[in-house]
Amino acid sequence: MMDDHPITPLDSRIAWECPWYRVRQDRIRLPNGGEGVYNVVEKCDAVWAVPVTPAGEIVLIRNYRYPLREWVWELPSGGVADGLTPLESAQRELAEEAGGTATEWRLLLRASAMNGIGTEYAYLYLATDVVLGQAEPEPTEAMSVHRVSAAEALRRARAGEINDAVSALALLLAEPYLETGKRDEAGDS
Amino acid sequence: MMDDHPITPLDSRIAWECPWYRVRQDRIRLPNGGEGVYNVVEKCDAVWAVPVTPAGEIVLIRNYRYPLREWVWELPSGGVADGLTPLESAQRELAEEAGGTATEWRLLLRASAMNGIGTEYAYLYLATDVVLGQAEPEPTEAMSVHRVSAAEALRRARAGEINDAVSALALLLAEPYLETGKRDEAGDS
Repeated sequence: MMDDHPITPLDSRIAWECPWYRVRQDRIRLPNGGEGVYNVVEKCDAVWAVPVTPAGEIVLIRNYRYPLREWVWELPSGGVADGLTPLESAQRELAEEAGGTATEWRLLLRASAMNGIGTEYAYLYLATDVVLGQAEPEPTEAMSVHRVSAAEALRRARAGEINDAVSALALLLAEPYLETGKRDEAGDS
Repeated sequence: MMDDHPITPLDSRIAWECPWYRVRQDRIRLPNGGEGVYNVVEKCDAVWAVPVTPAGEIVLIRNYRYPLREWVWELPSGGVADGLTPLESAQRELAEEAGGTATEWRLLLRASAMNGIGTEYAYLYLATDVVLGQAEPEPTEAMSVHRVSAAEALRRARAGEINDAVSALALLLAEPYLETGKRDEAGDS
């Protein structure tokens, strides 16, 4: 049986920090018995929402991501704020980025999003019966709100046009809950 | 029409660095005209492979991820090494982590994996006709190699048991290329 924790910390210090994340530098015991260093990005968890309107459309965000210097198609997403649960944070992001509210929320997945260097867990939600209102993005954000059919959102996810990986994952996980027209095409039901 | 680049750098410096990544601190012009700071994690791109054996099985890795202090089910993955293409890096990871070679490689997706803070792009590949040999993990790695049916791998991805988000995405994107038994269940073809 494998060791529960084959890599263990020997000591730890904060190597660098900013208001959004920090780097923790651990001296570690390696599986082969040697010593090493692991620099871990400590960051709050993050949330993504697949917002579905009563008409079955998906709400997508066109967002300028400064680290990439690119416009990215993605879902409403953001960090888990201090004092809020992941669900409350997802509800807040939907409200801020799209002015949206939903009557039903379902957790699709909890998974690590950067497990090579970071502590972040991603929480992916399906939000249904979404009504859109006035978005209130933060001053650091440049984005616009769009509605597309569920079939088109899934096509974009598979074609690489949703260039945020976790957004693409959330859309594919939501597929069983979406009206994609497949049942109609299938014929006689 | 939206500005091509609504957030622009004013100046830039390296705030912190280690052999695996570094933090670039940019003073930026915000969309509202104000000034701000953006701390960007500069990291090499990364690769994931969905390895499929001639029998239609998927090769999964059970990997201890120190940043999470958890054992994670995932696909063979790693960074794009200096001087290698993403494809060559995926081939190297399959060889190192599972002793595997494949006769055919197909790019499933290129997407950003941490676009809130980082520059990393993820390249997701399907590797078919995979033959496994002797794995040669690095001394910092604790992992084991497993083969499961394609249907079981997809079930785990949807159930949240593949707790690396990009691995789960790669498996779902690979589904159209996998033998999952669905055609048999469908009946009369």
